[in-house]
Amino acid sequence: MIAEIVSVGTELLMGQIVDSNAATISAALPSIGYRVLYRQTVGDNLERLTQTLKLALSRADVVITIGGLGPTMDDLTREGIAAALDEPLILDHDLQQELQQKFQQRRYPMVSSIIRQAYRPACARALPNPNGTAPGLIAEKGDKVVIALPGPPAELIPMFNDYVLPYLRERAGDEPGVILSRILRVCGMGESLVEDRIKELMQASNPTVAPYAKTGEVHLRITASAPSSEQAQAMIAEVEAQIRERLGNAVYGVDEQTLEQVVMELLWAKGATVAVAESCTGGLIGHRLTEVPGSSKALIGGVVAYSNELKIRLLGVPEESLRQHGAVSEPTARAMAEGIRALTGAHYGIGTTGIAGPTGGTPEKPVGLVYIAVASEKGTRVAEHRFIGRRSEVKWRASQAALVMLREELL
Amino acid sequence: MIAEIVSVGTELLMGQIVDSNAATISAALPSIGYRVLYRQTVGDNLERLTQTLKLALSRADVVITIGGLGPTMDDLTREGIAAALDEPLILDHDLQQELQQKFQQRRYPMVSSIIRQAYRPACARALPNPNGTAPGLIAEKGDKVVIALPGPPAELIPMFNDYVLPYLRERAGDEPGVILSRILRVCGMGESLVEDRIKELMQASNPTVAPYAKTGEVHLRITASAPSSEQAQAMIAEVEAQIRERLGNAVYGVDEQTLEQVVMELLWAKGATVAVAESCTGGLIGHRLTEVPGSSKALIGGVVAYSNELKIRLLGVPEESLRQHGAVSEPTARAMAEGIRALTGAHYGIGTTGIAGPTGGTPEKPVGLVYIAVASEKGTRVAEHRFIGRRSEVKWRASQAALVMLREELL
Repeated sequence: MIAEIVSVGTELLMGQIVDSNAATISAALPSIGYRVLYRQTVGDNLERLTQTLKLALSRADVVITIGGLGPTMDDLTREGIAAALDEPLILDHDLQQELQQKFQQRRYPMVSSIIRQAYRPACARALPNPNGTAPGLIAEKGDKVVIALPGPPAELIPMFNDYVLPYLRERAGDEPGVILSRILRVCGMGESLVEDRIKELMQASNPTVAPYAKTGEVHLRITASAPSSEQAQAMIAEVEAQIRERLGNAVYGVDEQTLEQVVMELLWAKGATVAVAESCTGGLIGHRLTEVPGSSKALIGGVVAYSNELKIRLLGVPEESLRQHGAVSEPTARAMAEGIRALTGAHYGIGTTGIAGPTGGTPEKPVGLVYIAVASEKGTRVAEHRFIGRRSEVKWRASQAALVMLREELL
Repeated sequence: MIAEIVSVGTELLMGQIVDSNAATISAALPSIGYRVLYRQTVGDNLERLTQTLKLALSRADVVITIGGLGPTMDDLTREGIAAALDEPLILDHDLQQELQQKFQQRRYPMVSSIIRQAYRPACARALPNPNGTAPGLIAEKGDKVVIALPGPPAELIPMFNDYVLPYLRERAGDEPGVILSRILRVCGMGESLVEDRIKELMQASNPTVAPYAKTGEVHLRITASAPSSEQAQAMIAEVEAQIRERLGNAVYGVDEQTLEQVVMELLWAKGATVAVAESCTGGLIGHRLTEVPGSSKALIGGVVAYSNELKIRLLGVPEESLRQHGAVSEPTARAMAEGIRALTGAHYGIGTTGIAGPTGGTPEKPVGLVYIAVASEKGTRVAEHRFIGRRSEVKWRASQAALVMLREELL
């Protein structure tokens, strides 16, 4: 079954709101056997809305509209659906009564325009909206369906989950079929190298494997289509195993797992502690590690040593070394990691120093040059990186590289 | 002039990412005389992408694509544009050289698929991408234009601002009529109080004033429609003055200005320095302050004192006080702010301690309880907060409250 989403509202086209509703609904459909091939967004204009709905109906079995069900003259989704399905728009007396009751209960003044919300295409039935005044709609005509949902997420999400998902699941009927996805998260390896290692797997059509470059990591999405969840999961597991064989430890997590979470879990498993000495990352590594609930079990703390004086006084970076090699150098990163470890007694010490930009770069030490060190009882490793991007990207990539390096030490 | 946006990527149709890029671009177009009547989203499929682009070209003067410019076989936007415009796709040798240089500079392995990014429709020219490898494209044919932008926001936003906006502005020529917006950023005052103070202004239809609640702050968007930029700006300025009169210092910035930037500017103006002692915020305040280019002029650094031992040893929090009042207490926040100030010699010291959750709360000290202190030569102020939300919201709100408090001290 093919579904298409039509988001309605001039505020979307003006960029005043981000269309998170469309993503919410899109994410739910594949698991019950619906594929979304297109999404359209159109403003509060009856002619263009009708045209958009007709195009969607020409290529999808189910069209889901979002928004435009309010009481104002700008809310035209009811009219648009009626026009696209060539159905009259009629006043539903039951809906009218319900609306009046709602307003009485809440002691709101009943504005005359509210009556607009009691209209529906003749072939449609209303979906209850306990969280607002606008009823949703399911309009069936021939083998096509149009489902209309209100725009506010607090009304849309419960209505979609409570009424629309069960309806669609039943409608998919004995065309069972589910589409499931799993994301493998890869760190410490660039997108093209990842792709190079798994390129045959990317040629397959079921499951499909698609790479997405994120800042400092790559996500691989495996998507399988199968008659049942069990079969789809088995297909995914097989491809996942092949990818893991080719990428090894670079696969650090799945789905919503973050790198900081994975690193924390490794620390917990070893009963180990960590402390951070951050210069160019400015606190970002500490921030990321403390996003993980329970991080206090492994994170002792750290020092944000932005000034040279703090590097010397708190971390014991030798003044002579700073003078000779500069703050952004291999010896400084090393001394910072070792210094924070000595200061706090942590099992692992991390040091970062670099030039985040946009200014401060020189031909020998350009913006994006970052040294990262991890110290432990086994010794200290230091890596030199040349990151690209703006200040915040350089910081993020540096924090990412530091967590990757700590993870390597822990594995 | 009519513009249409086409977002490309199966991950959008799967709901795996929310399309914030489309909103970003949509928001910028009206101010330079472009109306957006439709937006389309399509997956990584050449036939459907081509069809979508043809439809967009049939009804818009300018089509802007987002995404699908990466090096992988899934990245089909170059091919789609060439097909929709009926142009051959050719290898651009200059682009090829630039790509090779980028990879050499960064010492990344040059994988063969990267060469895909050096192809362009014959009628197109490339847009530089200093933040990534994928060049953008501007393809002019007859009276139509297709502009292709890379998907990662860190690449798209600068490319759009630096190259595409000036190009579109020039192309719109003397076409009059603009819609301009300005955002006033408000901190330290809840949404309902803000609304209460400006409610008559919110009734007007031109300029309109619309509030948006963000985590820890409120944004007010003023939008004016007028024949010229000068007139629209004058209308906005008048409403802005009225809002500032009613909200006073709570208006901390405009448009893209962040609170950390405003605080940094105040520090620079006074020639003052700051240092942070973070417990529950875990480095987030340091991270936010160091997002501002040039922050090293005012930020000395800080201590992430997650463990009690670091609070005692580095910040001089009295052990007795910790025992008596607990780590999450008014005296601890005070001692941390004073301790980091003494340790670093900064003019201002910030201390944060609280329970970020989800666990660790008690009836007396629930999740969300945070103490924030700012110490200066004038003395130390401490505030108690009870924030709501998940761990990362609590951390963010705490960092926000700390910056608000420092700003108050600086004003």
